[in-house]
Amino acid sequence: METIGSEQRDLLRTTSSEGCGVERTLKVLDGKWTTLIVRELLSGPKRFGDLRTALGSPSAKTLTDRLRALEHQRILTRTVYAEVPPRVVYRLTEEGESLSDVLYAMLRWGEEHPLTDD
Amino acid sequence: METIGSEQRDLLRTTSSEGCGVERTLKVLDGKWTTLIVRELLSGPKRFGDLRTALGSPSAKTLTDRLRALEHQRILTRTVYAEVPPRVVYRLTEEGESLSDVLYAMLRWGEEHPLTDD
Repeated sequence: METIGSEQRDLLRTTSSEGCGVERTLKVLDGKWTTLIVRELLSGPKRFGDLRTALGSPSAKTLTDRLRALEHQRILTRTVYAEVPPRVVYRLTEEGESLSDVLYAMLRWGEEHPLTDD
Repeated sequence: METIGSEQRDLLRTTSSEGCGVERTLKVLDGKWTTLIVRELLSGPKRFGDLRTALGSPSAKTLTDRLRALEHQRILTRTVYAEVPPRVVYRLTEEGESLSDVLYAMLRWGEEHPLTDD
């Protein structure tokens, strides 16, 4: 994917703060954990424990809070399978899947600008 | 800009958590204010007061902290002009400018998924 053109850059530059699309997106991707949850679910539905392990063990409360917020915003669904013990699975909605463009731009920037120690 | 292809999607899906580019980007764009500061500076260098007004008046401490962190990460520069009173101007570095791809993806997603009240 090539870099954005001058037209898109101008659009970004002239967008007013009020109701800007960037702020709308920040209401969803409002922090590190939220963004990483979406990244993890892009590879497919996952259970709570799988997510927690993949994300480097955030506290159960932190992960629960973020998952609830994302469910409320219709970015993911939470499905309970009536097994013993019950199995709870999180998966992205279509809207959640569409965040892959944002995540991919972040992936690309991060890979092109590795952290330096100096 | 069209949506990402299946190849890029696969890349995103198979990237390991460890040292992922997404996490690197999140070390820079680590919150709402930081992201909005970069968005504001994409339209050109700005003074502290201009930034504060444009962002809807975050506290001076919050804005100062975020600006220092971004300066430390070489996303922006802080230039003091020896006038009376001194004029302090913040501008994006080349690395900071390159975040426009990420910001544009966020802008686009936000515009395509407006907040609904239901």
